[in-house]
Amino acid sequence: MKLTDIYAIIEDELSEVEKGIRESLYHSPLTIASLIEDIIKTGGKRLRPALVVLSAKACGYQGKAYLNLAAAIELIHTATLIHDDVIDNATLRRGRISVNSKWGNHTSILVGDYLYSKAISLLLIDGSIDIQRIVALAVNKTCEGEIIQSIRNGQNDISEDEYLEIIEQKTAALISAACHCGACLGDNEQEKKLQSYGQNLGIGFQIIDDILDITGDEKRLGKLVCNDLREGRITLPVIFFLRNAQLDEKNRFKDILKSERFDADNIKWLIDTLRSCHAFEYARGVAGRYIDMAKEELREFPESEAKKSLLLLADYVMERDV
Amino acid sequence: MKLTDIYAIIEDELSEVEKGIRESLYHSPLTIASLIEDIIKTGGKRLRPALVVLSAKACGYQGKAYLNLAAAIELIHTATLIHDDVIDNATLRRGRISVNSKWGNHTSILVGDYLYSKAISLLLIDGSIDIQRIVALAVNKTCEGEIIQSIRNGQNDISEDEYLEIIEQKTAALISAACHCGACLGDNEQEKKLQSYGQNLGIGFQIIDDILDITGDEKRLGKLVCNDLREGRITLPVIFFLRNAQLDEKNRFKDILKSERFDADNIKWLIDTLRSCHAFEYARGVAGRYIDMAKEELREFPESEAKKSLLLLADYVMERDV
Repeated sequence: MKLTDIYAIIEDELSEVEKGIRESLYHSPLTIASLIEDIIKTGGKRLRPALVVLSAKACGYQGKAYLNLAAAIELIHTATLIHDDVIDNATLRRGRISVNSKWGNHTSILVGDYLYSKAISLLLIDGSIDIQRIVALAVNKTCEGEIIQSIRNGQNDISEDEYLEIIEQKTAALISAACHCGACLGDNEQEKKLQSYGQNLGIGFQIIDDILDITGDEKRLGKLVCNDLREGRITLPVIFFLRNAQLDEKNRFKDILKSERFDADNIKWLIDTLRSCHAFEYARGVAGRYIDMAKEELREFPESEAKKSLLLLADYVMERDV
Repeated sequence: MKLTDIYAIIEDELSEVEKGIRESLYHSPLTIASLIEDIIKTGGKRLRPALVVLSAKACGYQGKAYLNLAAAIELIHTATLIHDDVIDNATLRRGRISVNSKWGNHTSILVGDYLYSKAISLLLIDGSIDIQRIVALAVNKTCEGEIIQSIRNGQNDISEDEYLEIIEQKTAALISAACHCGACLGDNEQEKKLQSYGQNLGIGFQIIDDILDITGDEKRLGKLVCNDLREGRITLPVIFFLRNAQLDEKNRFKDILKSERFDADNIKWLIDTLRSCHAFEYARGVAGRYIDMAKEELREFPESEAKKSLLLLADYVMERDV
């Protein structure tokens, strides 16, 4: 199923969020507005704003307070992407030249900070103190996860548990907060369940992301394959491979990683080897477990269009190829 | 007068703020706590927390709500310093190895983000929505100033007005917010005056900082002289010089800047030339005008120890050699 179909029932709301993001940024000084226009145009899946809106609706909320909240969470996400790109020296993001390639690392760091501060301002417009706390804690966790990942960079002794803990922080925390905050607008009794839905969805999402980083199509992904390995980041398929591979395979892998020789031959060998040891299937299996847990959290929710979309979104996370 | 003397009447409060900063950070995961310990130990002038406390007291506030506020503003300031160091490739900060030299740019960007998110969490503990708005707007302005400075980097056609606008944003906004928020805790009628005191103090502070960057003692400053010029940043003494210098002097200056030849001979020539055209005196004159305006804002405040310290702090900003 396509994302646009899943989003169909909240099309108007997402347009309003989009408008809110643009408006909040177009009040920026002229020079900054022109920097940011690029980022906004680049779009993305808008997963987090959709989760805010759908969670609010699944909890029976009918107001408009999700608008600034959804815009704020998307801006925070954009800020982390921009800082990630500086960290990764990425040249492509969402198929376009990344902010750091175009404007340099200096400006990119500052634009990330700027977007984050704009997000905090948006949250203050009508956000309750509870919602602000949830978001602040999630940002905190995201940073913690990223820092631990950065410290462990280039080390290949990372365990599956440690990997899962890192992605729970760096990715699932903000996705979970999007659902949790949306739920807070509606019927509070459901907030724990939607928080947990988001947490499991987020972990599943990142595992699939890490698989696609290796197996995906560069054109469709809009970035180079094996970016994680190029940056010295070990993800679940590789963890599984290192746990099960023969010594000579392990050594060849470590040589590639150490020498950073990511030419076409080595990448082909890498993908073939991971495939033949069933590393991708294993990782998909783990992701699937989290996605099932996410869906399970919604079981007792009253039937609604929003609930249906949240369930479809969980399936989409598993099926997507981009 | 020494800073410790000016701070004497709020010694206990500043210790409590210091304790608050440490406590908020020591709840971090172990690996992160060890990164951050370094930053906290490095200290600094603690100008912003002192301004929060003194402004609150000058407005008759006697409670303790300044604690988290002062800690938050200092953490935000620390976060901007860490990101500045990444941007500047600085190797020394406050006389110690800077975070980015020790941990690499990657981790430094993330640690800055982390501190900022911790600051927002601290503000949420007992901060009013007004105070959060003031801080968020100030952070926004700080980023705007830094971005415009970054875009204008390496260009030497910057005017005095543009320079003043940049430093008002990148430095004075947060200093002004510290005073403004402190005042909000007490008698609200005075908040505009303290906001303006902070704004003028901040501009004066940055001008003197920019002079010291050229004329200061490396050992006492804890960083290399002419760091601004090394990074392609034109500050007030240089703006004055470029406005008044002979063509051959201008050309030599532009050559040094372009070729980045900051050897001892060129630095000596630069300082001598700026001195002989009275560039430092001129810049000190401009700073002095802002400092006088800052003090003027306090004229009608009832006499108090806090008011006395705020006035002394303004003098200190002019007199300091570090």
